[in-house]
Amino acid sequence: MTKAQGLKIAVIGGGSSYTPEIVEGFIKSYEQLPIRELWLVDIEAGKHKLEIVGELAKRMVAKSGLPIDVHLTLDRRKAIAGADFVSTQMRVGLLEARKYDEHIPNKYGVIGQETTGPGGMMKALRTIPVLLDICKDIEELAPNAWLLNFTNPAGMVTEAIARHSKVKSIGLCNAPIGLHKWLSKKYDTTSDHIYTEFVGLNHLHWVTRIEVEGEDKLTELLDKREEYSGKNVPATEWDLDFLRGLGGFPSYYLKYFYLTDVMLEEQLESLKANGTRAEVVKRVEDELFELYRDPDLQEKPKQLEQRGGAYYSEAAVNLMVSLYNDKRDIQTLNVTNGKILDFLPEDAAIEVNCVVTGKGPIPLPVTNVPEQAKGLIHAVKTYERLTIEAAITGDRAIALQAMASHPLVPSVKVAKALLDEMLEQNKPYLPAFFK
Amino acid sequence: MTKAQGLKIAVIGGGSSYTPEIVEGFIKSYEQLPIRELWLVDIEAGKHKLEIVGELAKRMVAKSGLPIDVHLTLDRRKAIAGADFVSTQMRVGLLEARKYDEHIPNKYGVIGQETTGPGGMMKALRTIPVLLDICKDIEELAPNAWLLNFTNPAGMVTEAIARHSKVKSIGLCNAPIGLHKWLSKKYDTTSDHIYTEFVGLNHLHWVTRIEVEGEDKLTELLDKREEYSGKNVPATEWDLDFLRGLGGFPSYYLKYFYLTDVMLEEQLESLKANGTRAEVVKRVEDELFELYRDPDLQEKPKQLEQRGGAYYSEAAVNLMVSLYNDKRDIQTLNVTNGKILDFLPEDAAIEVNCVVTGKGPIPLPVTNVPEQAKGLIHAVKTYERLTIEAAITGDRAIALQAMASHPLVPSVKVAKALLDEMLEQNKPYLPAFFK
Amino acid sequence: MTKAQGLKIAVIGGGSSYTPEIVEGFIKSYEQLPIRELWLVDIEAGKHKLEIVGELAKRMVAKSGLPIDVHLTLDRRKAIAGADFVSTQMRVGLLEARKYDEHIPNKYGVIGQETTGPGGMMKALRTIPVLLDICKDIEELAPNAWLLNFTNPAGMVTEAIARHSKVKSIGLCNAPIGLHKWLSKKYDTTSDHIYTEFVGLNHLHWVTRIEVEGEDKLTELLDKREEYSGKNVPATEWDLDFLRGLGGFPSYYLKYFYLTDVMLEEQLESLKANGTRAEVVKRVEDELFELYRDPDLQEKPKQLEQRGGAYYSEAAVNLMVSLYNDKRDIQTLNVTNGKILDFLPEDAAIEVNCVVTGKGPIPLPVTNVPEQAKGLIHAVKTYERLTIEAAITGDRAIALQAMASHPLVPSVKVAKALLDEMLEQNKPYLPAFFK
Amino acid sequence: MTKAQGLKIAVIGGGSSYTPEIVEGFIKSYEQLPIRELWLVDIEAGKHKLEIVGELAKRMVAKSGLPIDVHLTLDRRKAIAGADFVSTQMRVGLLEARKYDEHIPNKYGVIGQETTGPGGMMKALRTIPVLLDICKDIEELAPNAWLLNFTNPAGMVTEAIARHSKVKSIGLCNAPIGLHKWLSKKYDTTSDHIYTEFVGLNHLHWVTRIEVEGEDKLTELLDKREEYSGKNVPATEWDLDFLRGLGGFPSYYLKYFYLTDVMLEEQLESLKANGTRAEVVKRVEDELFELYRDPDLQEKPKQLEQRGGAYYSEAAVNLMVSLYNDKRDIQTLNVTNGKILDFLPEDAAIEVNCVVTGKGPIPLPVTNVPEQAKGLIHAVKTYERLTIEAAITGDRAIALQAMASHPLVPSVKVAKALLDEMLEQNKPYLPAFFK
Repeated sequence: MTKAQGLKIAVIGGGSSYTPEIVEGFIKSYEQLPIRELWLVDIEAGKHKLEIVGELAKRMVAKSGLPIDVHLTLDRRKAIAGADFVSTQMRVGLLEARKYDEHIPNKYGVIGQETTGPGGMMKALRTIPVLLDICKDIEELAPNAWLLNFTNPAGMVTEAIARHSKVKSIGLCNAPIGLHKWLSKKYDTTSDHIYTEFVGLNHLHWVTRIEVEGEDKLTELLDKREEYSGKNVPATEWDLDFLRGLGGFPSYYLKYFYLTDVMLEEQLESLKANGTRAEVVKRVEDELFELYRDPDLQEKPKQLEQRGGAYYSEAAVNLMVSLYNDKRDIQTLNVTNGKILDFLPEDAAIEVNCVVTGKGPIPLPVTNVPEQAKGLIHAVKTYERLTIEAAITGDRAIALQAMASHPLVPSVKVAKALLDEMLEQNKPYLPAFFK
Repeated sequence: MTKAQGLKIAVIGGGSSYTPEIVEGFIKSYEQLPIRELWLVDIEAGKHKLEIVGELAKRMVAKSGLPIDVHLTLDRRKAIAGADFVSTQMRVGLLEARKYDEHIPNKYGVIGQETTGPGGMMKALRTIPVLLDICKDIEELAPNAWLLNFTNPAGMVTEAIARHSKVKSIGLCNAPIGLHKWLSKKYDTTSDHIYTEFVGLNHLHWVTRIEVEGEDKLTELLDKREEYSGKNVPATEWDLDFLRGLGGFPSYYLKYFYLTDVMLEEQLESLKANGTRAEVVKRVEDELFELYRDPDLQEKPKQLEQRGGAYYSEAAVNLMVSLYNDKRDIQTLNVTNGKILDFLPEDAAIEVNCVVTGKGPIPLPVTNVPEQAKGLIHAVKTYERLTIEAAITGDRAIALQAMASHPLVPSVKVAKALLDEMLEQNKPYLPAFFK
Repeated sequence: MTKAQGLKIAVIGGGSSYTPEIVEGFIKSYEQLPIRELWLVDIEAGKHKLEIVGELAKRMVAKSGLPIDVHLTLDRRKAIAGADFVSTQMRVGLLEARKYDEHIPNKYGVIGQETTGPGGMMKALRTIPVLLDICKDIEELAPNAWLLNFTNPAGMVTEAIARHSKVKSIGLCNAPIGLHKWLSKKYDTTSDHIYTEFVGLNHLHWVTRIEVEGEDKLTELLDKREEYSGKNVPATEWDLDFLRGLGGFPSYYLKYFYLTDVMLEEQLESLKANGTRAEVVKRVEDELFELYRDPDLQEKPKQLEQRGGAYYSEAAVNLMVSLYNDKRDIQTLNVTNGKILDFLPEDAAIEVNCVVTGKGPIPLPVTNVPEQAKGLIHAVKTYERLTIEAAITGDRAIALQAMASHPLVPSVKVAKALLDEMLEQNKPYLPAFFK
Repeated sequence: MTKAQGLKIAVIGGGSSYTPEIVEGFIKSYEQLPIRELWLVDIEAGKHKLEIVGELAKRMVAKSGLPIDVHLTLDRRKAIAGADFVSTQMRVGLLEARKYDEHIPNKYGVIGQETTGPGGMMKALRTIPVLLDICKDIEELAPNAWLLNFTNPAGMVTEAIARHSKVKSIGLCNAPIGLHKWLSKKYDTTSDHIYTEFVGLNHLHWVTRIEVEGEDKLTELLDKREEYSGKNVPATEWDLDFLRGLGGFPSYYLKYFYLTDVMLEEQLESLKANGTRAEVVKRVEDELFELYRDPDLQEKPKQLEQRGGAYYSEAAVNLMVSLYNDKRDIQTLNVTNGKILDFLPEDAAIEVNCVVTGKGPIPLPVTNVPEQAKGLIHAVKTYERLTIEAAITGDRAIALQAMASHPLVPSVKVAKALLDEMLEQNKPYLPAFFK
């Protein structure tokens, strides 16, 4: 990948409120990632947002003085053709669909969450077919491109692409980089003096090694129940006795599994007070777009950091830089398992440390996998694989198996009721199920 | 194992109400299993029952006219010394302890069951150290003996023995033979015309092949929701749509996992009406021993079949016969995994078809493992391995991980409360935890 | 497989001198294997032999009084259509081709053998495409038939079929049954009191357990250097020190690998005295056919036992009987590895103990694999897999890799010279290489 | 490993002619590897050489002006105590023993080579017990030290240490860095623009990826039969057809396996002309020590580069720098397999790319393993593992299995003769065999 004339990048879902962040990243990293063309593409329904955020992007680039051409388009194929990198950050069904992903499970006394459980399953069913369509375009129009997928549920989407297309694709989450940022601040050091080892799946990982300047900090962190937390997960406290025996620093998403009762209670209370998380986000986004409109704004506004997906863009730019420059640094990514976790299928997607070479990421063997984590990882992976199969086949029987397999779904009876109501609600986005 | 003078068998927990059944089995199979000495051994607290059932055993043998010497003893080492087979069928803490295994979880809205969940965990914590003590005696006094373990939770006990002693041991359950009996009756054929393939763990298996006279009957059985059921599991109905997609005929114990809400409801109702299952069993046992007392009784009374553990003895005698005669027939047993289920550790105990040779059972590779089953198998195996570790170390932190890992325990908060109360309740039987 | 009207069996290469043996087997086992139609099929070049041996078969059946119809045909598709079992025992290129398989390597100071080394490779290149053609017919005309393959090199042929067709196929060798016959005689017992465990590949196995009436005899046999030997392998003596450290009773074919120098010397001497083994066999066969012609002959002549492939037919009939009756006994067969030998690919053919059920053989896990054997097994399997690939693609570069990989070929230089001369010699039988 | 006061390094075999090179390396890398104490240690027999080379080392350090203390000692324990790094570069039996490693096999028409075949086996038998003794000292006196092992046969020595001691150890060879040097020169670029992937064992590897500035060069290199070669391996030409089909750029040591006949011929000719390679090296060394004596010499003399082990020291210093600084760059090292090559045992040593972190190297999964390479890798690994077992037990039966298993040894007969003569020759260095 050594283009004399510079790189072409296509951002699918370019009308997203996150776009200013990734544009800022591209500007900052221009020397290592010489972009010539940046294509922001969105669907008809997102045209208005694309225009607002696209114009801001153009103003940001103009201010930087860099020779990057920003293109706005609704024509996906045009954006993809000949691209070096394609990134996706989209939401099939928009925030409206997410609202039901969160709300319907809550009605049944089940966690409502957009990346796992019944909500995550619906999001996967809506998203996977669309992503596989995009992959067909990439196979045809940009077969050498790297697809960087941010679209949640990132683990399932990445696995679906790896198993059902030929596109070179990597799944990305902001949690790993977020942990490094938090550790850097806490220990007053830089990220390259921190070594962490991730074990598990997207939104279901344990950090089994944390070394700062060569010293083990894992025990200390578990012992004090110190935690960093995502913007989108309530800051419920871990049980200290439990944490000490856990053998790894848990992802904040693990609260949904370990602290289910408290988390559900919080969800129900928050629902009463503020509506679903989708509705909260909707309001934040509306405010952001209000800001973006300002023709004098030429940079990413501070308020974007409140949005929840902090560092997503930094993660993406870092990855592109390493792929482009064969940098061989270690990043935590969603990739195909191979033999890393020997209890999962070789073609399963996992979230794991990788060395990023010019030919792609090589996943690193893990030092140890806590016994405690294996059952839960496998239970969720079972749900993920059944969900992927259901997304591709539209087979309701498999969808029922998927739903009933999820550890947060208490019984087949509840699974069936949830499935019926949620499939119906998502009908417009699930052609495979309603042929 | 070709003893000119006949075999010596030691039955630990010989005062059990099941003993007449195994004695009947020995009498019927004498030609293939020439027993010279049968030692029934029990603990002080079981002395009274041992005498009653032991005298019945002597009357049964006398009636048969066979040259078997029946010995009753409280001296375990004497019973074990030089034995060819040792079988265990005991209950540390007696039915009184079981009562709390069932009752305490119910108080927290959790399934109370003596072989899985919090109840099964307590039973494992009580039982494993005692079994390992027995194994030390066998290692010393009868190193070539086969240990046939019926004691529940049979999977965990078998795995603990395999990993922590040198005794040649096999775990046994009556469910596989029970399925064959049911199929034989249903299809009016004999067991040797039936081929079934079991996948999973003890009390957590799926039957993935059922062939009767060479014809596949699995689909038919799933399609009609026909079911056989254990005496000790309520006959709740499966969801037909779910069953069709399951890919295997489920063990009746799987109802606790798939139909949790209905099963819990039934438990709570039954608890109100009849007390715990332990209390019901207690009454049945009292009646049985009343019968056993009758000096005119010279055979196994019909009423024993109501007891719940039907065919246990037949399973045991079949296994001894095959081991003794290098019979090389297929039996479903609890043995060490090896590479059969490639997602579990090699030293995990699984329940699987085996060819029983004179040197022991060889587990058979399985044709397929339904994707749906993997997560649940691994989740329960995780709980089992942590429980074994807790039983051996008496480490409360590991015990908390075990409890929290069980799919029927809804959160760490509940796990902790259950653990605290149940350990306290079992204090007399858990010296490792209360040093 | 429960045919009211009796079974149909097709024997491809029916004009073979072995046919009377298999016919005798069918007659003896009629009760367990009720054959209605026996089709002997051969190619035009074998028509004359087919007629002679076919008439003998008819006379044998007539004498037995059984209602078996014997058909002789040159129409393979007619023979296969609707068959329950197809067996193959053929020799592409006839004994003439074998002559060169043995002779050319000898010229280069290399072992000349028809089932391994350069000779075995040529035989595989000639045979595999023909067998895969037969498989296409079976897929179309008898999709439920079992294919029993005796055709050497049986391991490679079995693997090629398993990987490149959908036919249910099993590879067979007479060595395992030969060992049992030898042990039965030596220890004056019956085969069902003998337990042996085979590890390795066809013509490259170690017997790692030998128990007679429950007692280990392996050490004793190795210690005394006692040996049984095939008719087709010179009876060179093993080094006693070496044998004691070997950890398994070696297949007599292993002499080619361990005693290469002595075996080569014997080959060269025998070549001088009697010509190649192919020429010796040719003379034996001519004599046999002379006998078969006799219209008064109604049974298998004694002289056939000198032929070298003793017990082949017994092995085949045993296997058919177990498949047909779901007998679940243990037989040593060439089947797909799965996870049995964990250092070989899952789709490699290995020779291993299997339980033969009505749905096919299930390979049994092996107790141990001697460290010493692994390297050699893997080296030969590498050659086998490259040879299979060469047979299917006709790619000379791959053929060179195959030849150079064989442990009996001393260098790439010799490999290349051998390959050039042997491909040229086999030109008429290798259309893929001479397109 | 953040020592305020600087590092302590112990070089075992410090009297080696290579020492000036490593001293030069330490001086050049002082900024990244702040050494405070450098201990050169040797045995009594090497005292004279230690003094000569030690004084040169002191002069070199003095000239550099760096605050490194150079210590010369015969007291190994003193040198090791509290060391941060221990490196070994020794030759048990000195060049005299090597002479016979090379000469005796040649007498039997077998390749005589000090790192593989019968010669390598003898070297391993002499060396492994000594290295394990050193490891005991390290376990006791410097438990946190890294042991960098250059001592050949480096693969077997590394595996022996990993399996039989607790020392953190890494095996090193100069071939990987040598390839990079050669590629850098050939393509006029720097090493960080080259990506290579190694598959195999020490002195038995295939390079399956060679990318220069992101472009694949493997095919081009194979196609032109271009080769780089070690000083210690004759530059025999590869067969071009063979090379093209090989799927990887072969280590120059592979010539002993693939071009055995030509290599043997060259050995025999060279033996006649110049004596064994050991004798040639002896003369080179004598000349080097003559130079080292010169009190005016203050730097590594140019002539050292002719010695054969070019870049050894650069490899060692690079590795220490990366370990000390948690550099996370990719180096090709001899480490424990884990799951990288799935056909070898997990505890086997392999030569493979690793990311070097502060906690040690993490081996990288390999992209592909050529089918062609597997058999040979496994055959040699079999020999290696048996040799290690023989070295530790002194068991002659196992030694015979090891010798007979090596692909360059043509038969058990030759193996036995070689073993007898070579063990006898090495008697003074093999106490375990002559108890």
